[in-house]
Amino acid sequence: MAERVDGRRVLRYDDGVLVERPDTLAVEEPLEIRLGQTPLTVTMRTPGDDIDLALGWLVGEGVIRRPDDVISLRERSQAMPDGLPARSVEIELAHGVEAPRPRAFLTSSACGVCGTDAIATIRRRVDEGAAGLDADDRVVAATVLTGLPDLLRAEQSAFARSGGLHAAGLFSLTGELQVVREDVGRHNAVDKVVGWAVRHDRLPLRGTVLQVSGRASFELAAKAVAAGIPVLSAISAPSTLAVDLARETGLTLAGFVRGRSFNVYAGAQRIR
Amino acid sequence: MAERVDGRRVLRYDDGVLVERPDTLAVEEPLEIRLGQTPLTVTMRTPGDDIDLALGWLVGEGVIRRPDDVISLRERSQAMPDGLPARSVEIELAHGVEAPRPRAFLTSSACGVCGTDAIATIRRRVDEGAAGLDADDRVVAATVLTGLPDLLRAEQSAFARSGGLHAAGLFSLTGELQVVREDVGRHNAVDKVVGWAVRHDRLPLRGTVLQVSGRASFELAAKAVAAGIPVLSAISAPSTLAVDLARETGLTLAGFVRGRSFNVYAGAQRIR
Repeated sequence: MAERVDGRRVLRYDDGVLVERPDTLAVEEPLEIRLGQTPLTVTMRTPGDDIDLALGWLVGEGVIRRPDDVISLRERSQAMPDGLPARSVEIELAHGVEAPRPRAFLTSSACGVCGTDAIATIRRRVDEGAAGLDADDRVVAATVLTGLPDLLRAEQSAFARSGGLHAAGLFSLTGELQVVREDVGRHNAVDKVVGWAVRHDRLPLRGTVLQVSGRASFELAAKAVAAGIPVLSAISAPSTLAVDLARETGLTLAGFVRGRSFNVYAGAQRIR
Repeated sequence: MAERVDGRRVLRYDDGVLVERPDTLAVEEPLEIRLGQTPLTVTMRTPGDDIDLALGWLVGEGVIRRPDDVISLRERSQAMPDGLPARSVEIELAHGVEAPRPRAFLTSSACGVCGTDAIATIRRRVDEGAAGLDADDRVVAATVLTGLPDLLRAEQSAFARSGGLHAAGLFSLTGELQVVREDVGRHNAVDKVVGWAVRHDRLPLRGTVLQVSGRASFELAAKAVAAGIPVLSAISAPSTLAVDLARETGLTLAGFVRGRSFNVYAGAQRIR
């Protein structure tokens, strides 16, 4: 079982005094996502739920939507010459599912939209997820929304709560938790949630709220839309481009969800 | 002049009351970095210091080290079909400077090491910056280090201090500020600092401390090493891979620099 945290000896300096002590750190390691033998991407991620990470990433790339879109999934592990563990997930797509163009690059622990020619490509890519999003008129109570950060924190590991890992949680519109995932990369946490949903044939994820522990960038908004999620709620700020994408696609975007207050940047009609 | 923040109307919900009001958001927009007419990468960044961002990014890619490595730099702006501003920086390398392999992909606002085949490539890439780093035996006082987060905050815009933007600041070993840059992407803020240093022919950046406002990922540690920076100090946690890279290359890595305390994860001999 891949560990999400690992120990390192550190020197703790505190007001003139230096002591050596053990410390716990978030594990960051490369994972390669392959289509058969062809590398598609390398992402810097926290180990665990690698299959879901690969599936969710493919949803964000506009490649798959259902479990049947994938024929086989294989996790591989091999040592690289420099001793670094090289894990990969090999995917075989079903006949008729169009493969993304092969690429070979490294996605950082804080990166998710890498690998495309332009933003326009991403916007086209999220179209299928956005289809009908405007027509999804189910609402979420403001009091449910304000409760989600605490529900998310309650599901996080103690280490993640301390800030070492990002978290993403999928909730029903009445606030029932469906799945929580953690990662050094916030986009990876979201990919793991979406990949879980693909495995359970839940896309498009209508009637859900995606609560994230940090900020809402363009890429997170795009991933939510691609998965058909109608409400994205962030504890911190969204960027201008995340707000603009939300307004164009019909995504409800809430930010600064803290205590009993929050901001609604788009899709306010879904909040009661 | 490109603006780093922009206004949007938002609905503010506070304990049952909903009011419309203006809000300020961090601008996130794509910037394409081109080698002549060939696109190298598209990064999601906050506008401003785009030339420095491109130069710093090329340092991290192991392509340039000195102002003379670049013959010409041109900023371009053109409207895309979907109305999104499309800014690019076109770079012409000096004869004999090896170009990186052309790539066409999108780097997110939170991504920096994208675009390479593997981590091993990055490790090789940082070697030139790391050359001689071990031999750099100048030290920084612990009391200087604990003062840097406040010095960084004092230089940040009010908006950035509120958490909307990441900041990176370059300081001397005695705590004199040299340059501060802000961006929605922490790797972009670091690229902008390094690009500023390239323009001033300051590489390798011996005798400096790079203070960052957030966490220290592998990519930030790699960028610091590539620029020859001996000390990387982060307000939050480093990842395992950042610590491992620091120990291999001789980089001093401090984390959780808060109040009068911090952790030293690597290169403690440089802290007095």
